[in-house]
Amino acid sequence: MTLKETGERAKKAKRALAKLTTDEKNSILRGCAKALNENSRDIIKANAIDLENGRSAGLKPSIIDRLILDEGRIAAMADSLEQIATLPDPVGEMLNMRTLPNGLIVGQKRVPMGVIGIIYEARPNVTSDAFGLCIKAGSAVILRGGKDAINSNIAIIKLFRDKIKALGFESDIVQLVEDTSRESSTEMMKMNGYIDVLIPRGGAGLIQSVVKNSTVPVIETGVGNCHIFVDESADIEKAVNITVNAKAQRPGVCNAAETLLVHRNIAEKFLPPVIKALREKNVEIRGDEAVKAIVNDVKDAVEDDWATEYLDYILAVKVVADVDEAIEHIAKYSTGHSECIVSESYSNTQKFLSEVDSAAVYANASTRFTDGNEFGFGAEIGISTQKLHARGPMGLKELTTTKYIIYGSGQVRG
Amino acid sequence: MTLKETGERAKKAKRALAKLTTDEKNSILRGCAKALNENSRDIIKANAIDLENGRSAGLKPSIIDRLILDEGRIAAMADSLEQIATLPDPVGEMLNMRTLPNGLIVGQKRVPMGVIGIIYEARPNVTSDAFGLCIKAGSAVILRGGKDAINSNIAIIKLFRDKIKALGFESDIVQLVEDTSRESSTEMMKMNGYIDVLIPRGGAGLIQSVVKNSTVPVIETGVGNCHIFVDESADIEKAVNITVNAKAQRPGVCNAAETLLVHRNIAEKFLPPVIKALREKNVEIRGDEAVKAIVNDVKDAVEDDWATEYLDYILAVKVVADVDEAIEHIAKYSTGHSECIVSESYSNTQKFLSEVDSAAVYANASTRFTDGNEFGFGAEIGISTQKLHARGPMGLKELTTTKYIIYGSGQVRG
Repeated sequence: MTLKETGERAKKAKRALAKLTTDEKNSILRGCAKALNENSRDIIKANAIDLENGRSAGLKPSIIDRLILDEGRIAAMADSLEQIATLPDPVGEMLNMRTLPNGLIVGQKRVPMGVIGIIYEARPNVTSDAFGLCIKAGSAVILRGGKDAINSNIAIIKLFRDKIKALGFESDIVQLVEDTSRESSTEMMKMNGYIDVLIPRGGAGLIQSVVKNSTVPVIETGVGNCHIFVDESADIEKAVNITVNAKAQRPGVCNAAETLLVHRNIAEKFLPPVIKALREKNVEIRGDEAVKAIVNDVKDAVEDDWATEYLDYILAVKVVADVDEAIEHIAKYSTGHSECIVSESYSNTQKFLSEVDSAAVYANASTRFTDGNEFGFGAEIGISTQKLHARGPMGLKELTTTKYIIYGSGQVRG
Repeated sequence: MTLKETGERAKKAKRALAKLTTDEKNSILRGCAKALNENSRDIIKANAIDLENGRSAGLKPSIIDRLILDEGRIAAMADSLEQIATLPDPVGEMLNMRTLPNGLIVGQKRVPMGVIGIIYEARPNVTSDAFGLCIKAGSAVILRGGKDAINSNIAIIKLFRDKIKALGFESDIVQLVEDTSRESSTEMMKMNGYIDVLIPRGGAGLIQSVVKNSTVPVIETGVGNCHIFVDESADIEKAVNITVNAKAQRPGVCNAAETLLVHRNIAEKFLPPVIKALREKNVEIRGDEAVKAIVNDVKDAVEDDWATEYLDYILAVKVVADVDEAIEHIAKYSTGHSECIVSESYSNTQKFLSEVDSAAVYANASTRFTDGNEFGFGAEIGISTQKLHARGPMGLKELTTTKYIIYGSGQVRG
């Protein structure tokens, strides 16, 4: 099937989907969850082909690990669909309804986006999660996963489509682009009129490619060069805990900290214990001259370090003169994801929260909380680092749009 | 100055602007309004050069008309800035603030976009209006107007920048791109990292060029192939008034109607009076066979007519079998701007409002109301026909974004 045909089918299916009640959408999600659990062996068989191909192709062990599907992971995918079924439906909410002086009753109704495109890499669980979130939000979804997971993805989507059809609904509400060539990805980015929004999920390279090449509106997700600033008045114990948690609790994710900024008046008291605690978690420290003057065996931080999202057990550390220098540094190097000030100063905290221009700005808490589940959304499609439409963790609501509904009684404009 | 330098200056200025209070921003707007009134002769002098150039270049009278600035139009620009100063400031509003189970206090703060780019054509009043809205919304603005108005624009922006400086603020909060080559426009569309959102204002060609070429997030505005559907149960008098108003009150704007769909059971009763009334307003009728069978002297409507935004005294008219065929026709041809059903049927009205996927969907009122001022926003930067970020008329709120603010007390993630 050509991508245009896929687009035509999605465009037709979105209208059928938009008419379903919440109960009907939930029955699809629960049906697909059941189908996953009952057919896990078929998926594992398809996944085995991907794993074999991946090993022959010499994929890195970390990528192979993301690719593996076993009973446990498939059950987790099913649980996730069940969980999405329990969430409130955002569609249909009426916002700001009011009567204008001329008697027109105007409100904004929350409605589905229409067709959502997801371009992603090797995690086959994204196939199931993204499907669940888009369907619950009332939009048809076109999934374009990476070639490494193609057999797993085909098996999962076949299962879903068969189940949806068996339940009596339009199976084209979910489609997989089976052509995993670069061309199919580029073509998908130009499908204006078919796809209403494109969400890339994956590494910085994939995201930048979509941002650069897509003429379809994009929600940019994910890259996080996150900062912790420890102010002179910080509670040392809180500051150590927050820094260690933000860096080392799970370093491979976008909300992990990459740079620690320390006020010069607390550097001598704070740096030795925090670096000791970080090193116990195997974190490598790269510091500026001031850091190296206080702690031994610190590697040089070079200009590149301030701009790097390590996603690894490495932390860049810099001593700054005050909260203003910290804010300047963040303005210069941050990707606008998550930043934190650790401080007992009312004024410096308010200043930092007000002036730092990132999706999530914290006082005295780990940046690791920037997450849809932690924020209480129940599910997450990604974390937006752009300013349009959605900023920060995106749940079901962020997968919808609104339209104005106007009830009149014959009004014309004068 | 290169565009990159312009971008660097805007990036610096946006931070100064974001710190201003509402009172300070209003003092800038009122100061600039005063400057317009006091220096109207300088602007008129600059405008005269544009008019002379335009006439020599053989610009159409309608474009020359848009270009003209006189005392009255300049006073209207000043009034508009005064009016923006009276509007509530959207920045700083705290949304959905709540305490999570772990004690974190999380809310979304409405904050400025940062730097907004506006690419527009020959209307010099856009220079002043867009400046006013962006500044009030707390964002620095880079304006790139058409070459036909360049002398007028340079005069207006010089006036504003001088006034802003005289008031003690950073004048780079507003900058004009004086290079009006196609290259400067294309370069502006690639200024990721400098410009946070780009809003094109003008004809369909300009808008499509920005949508196709911009890597900066875009808000698509304006193109409106709007429909009126007159259902079998419609009140004939209301239906005539609404149709005539939607088509002929001001045909050159995006919320004017372009196609009339008529239920076959009311066609014989409704078409003669509505076409008579439209013809009295000099509207040319292009109809399908069924229309031509009822009314004399109707031109043939061809396939292209259903897809055309005439912006003129022309209306395409089609007879349909029922509300479902009307909804199908709209789904196929509409640009998703504004559509209206005229009906006394509860079920058909609810169906139309629910199933038509456009920015504004009306029951029994003219589509001409799709407008920021009519909806009570006090001002409008344009009408979004895309689904991301803003849909429908965009006021000050739509020129802002949000960021998550999190107050903690040492929380780390488990």
